[in-house]
Amino acid sequence: MLPVLPQVYSKNIMPNPITSFTPNRYIPFITPNDAIHPQASVIGDVIIGADVNIAPFASIRGDEGTPIYIGQGSNVQDGVVIHGLKNGRVKKDGQDYSVYIGKDVSLAHQSQIHGPAKVGDNVFVGMQSFVYKSEIGNNVVIEPTAKVIGVKVADNRYVPAGEIIKTQEQADKLPVITPEYSNKDMNHEVVEVNKELAYSYPANYYMTNLA
Amino acid sequence: MLPVLPQVYSKNIMPNPITSFTPNRYIPFITPNDAIHPQASVIGDVIIGADVNIAPFASIRGDEGTPIYIGQGSNVQDGVVIHGLKNGRVKKDGQDYSVYIGKDVSLAHQSQIHGPAKVGDNVFVGMQSFVYKSEIGNNVVIEPTAKVIGVKVADNRYVPAGEIIKTQEQADKLPVITPEYSNKDMNHEVVEVNKELAYSYPANYYMTNLA
Amino acid sequence: MLPVLPQVYSKNIMPNPITSFTPNRYIPFITPNDAIHPQASVIGDVIIGADVNIAPFASIRGDEGTPIYIGQGSNVQDGVVIHGLKNGRVKKDGQDYSVYIGKDVSLAHQSQIHGPAKVGDNVFVGMQSFVYKSEIGNNVVIEPTAKVIGVKVADNRYVPAGEIIKTQEQADKLPVITPEYSNKDMNHEVVEVNKELAYSYPANYYMTNLA
Repeated sequence: MLPVLPQVYSKNIMPNPITSFTPNRYIPFITPNDAIHPQASVIGDVIIGADVNIAPFASIRGDEGTPIYIGQGSNVQDGVVIHGLKNGRVKKDGQDYSVYIGKDVSLAHQSQIHGPAKVGDNVFVGMQSFVYKSEIGNNVVIEPTAKVIGVKVADNRYVPAGEIIKTQEQADKLPVITPEYSNKDMNHEVVEVNKELAYSYPANYYMTNLA
Repeated sequence: MLPVLPQVYSKNIMPNPITSFTPNRYIPFITPNDAIHPQASVIGDVIIGADVNIAPFASIRGDEGTPIYIGQGSNVQDGVVIHGLKNGRVKKDGQDYSVYIGKDVSLAHQSQIHGPAKVGDNVFVGMQSFVYKSEIGNNVVIEPTAKVIGVKVADNRYVPAGEIIKTQEQADKLPVITPEYSNKDMNHEVVEVNKELAYSYPANYYMTNLA
Repeated sequence: MLPVLPQVYSKNIMPNPITSFTPNRYIPFITPNDAIHPQASVIGDVIIGADVNIAPFASIRGDEGTPIYIGQGSNVQDGVVIHGLKNGRVKKDGQDYSVYIGKDVSLAHQSQIHGPAKVGDNVFVGMQSFVYKSEIGNNVVIEPTAKVIGVKVADNRYVPAGEIIKTQEQADKLPVITPEYSNKDMNHEVVEVNKELAYSYPANYYMTNLA
């Protein structure tokens, strides 16, 4: 998707290796307004929008299912994994992606998005949650430790903490977010905090190669 | 809480950035008797007691909810995350903390403590377990893969493996640790092993900046 | 198990410290055909067969329960933890191990094998799954987010996603993998992809010490 450019890279941001399933070498596309911790890892065919904060030990590995897209203003917290299977893609605006994540999405600590998977805008994926072979609508809250496997979740739903959603029937019965739903605005605050962190961590500190 | 001192820091131990919610820059407080793996991460307003072993890929991130306190003789195992929300604090001896963890606490591999949260002394938090918006008493065992959200757990209780405790009613019914409870002494052994690891890993090896 | 050899080591591959429970210093045994990401960690008494791919933030820590063995062609994905308790061993061909993992085993992202534990050949351990104090037969699939604690799982069984298996009675009732079982061949593909990744990532890139 992106041309191979000559570029210095470091231990934590590197191109994918050339393989039968990823026959071109891609360098992650990152903007100067992203903050990528020197102990995070971004590999290969990954496109990251502006204002994204990526915390320690997050791994975004675009070496098998590709590309991986993360929209503007999203955040990828500590220990999160984003990866995709060799086979299977999701569609967005006519393009194929292994993992597509929209704008202003929070991926909380130790959560995982495994492709093929698509996540809409303004979604909160809770701590230790899991999304796999699924499509998540806009304005969804996946509460902490919930798991979503092989289903489509409509806009404005939430998945209660700890639930395991494995059938479309379960997904269709998920509760709708109401004004009373106490966590309704949670994602907004997490997104704002992380945008401020993205601005405040040293600019391009992934290039400084601190020992 | 701690003064800003001139200090060399490295990729894995760094100050928080200045933000609207953390307007001062803090350097983690660490004793010479702690062992912090060069691939662990400690950021910002974090106070760590003596004899603490921090394993690879543990992230203790004091840049949002602050401060984070870890008591003497505790251990933070591989891939553990400790972080806190901007809002919400727990009290200990009249002081406010985002996360307070007592003495001789084991945070086993891939577990997470997310503030506001308080953990008493001599507590075992099992592998892949999760504690959030909760207060855990002394001498508690949270067995592996159990989740504790939004409740208070009294002293000397245990949470059976895999259970998800989301209401105070569930928490109040948790079983009491009896002499017959086979894992009763498990935390003691894990704490002793990890104290010995803290003494035995190279002193200050977080400062050696091994390539 | 391995002699102490003079060897340069780096931040991500280091010997264990000498302790009362591991009184000798071991350097991990790694072949030139393994790919170990510079942001993975391998410590101490660990023996790794050929063609093994070890992804970012995987921690294989042979400093307490030892040794840890990983068979040829297996893969250890992002954020996986392998560790063992001081006490308890499994047997394989008359030898004692804290953790024994066979050939062509996939340990998917954020899963954990905690010893004493034994995993047979051609096993798929799903994302966020957990195996502890257990013995897993050959050709088993542990689906994502399933947990297996304190049991023996016979050959050719699968553990449905999200299930928590804590008693031998549960384990004995696990379904047998049939030709209809759709994920039957999943591990084969994951193993082949990861072997190709092991060949394709820079040879010995764990020695290059990229900044």
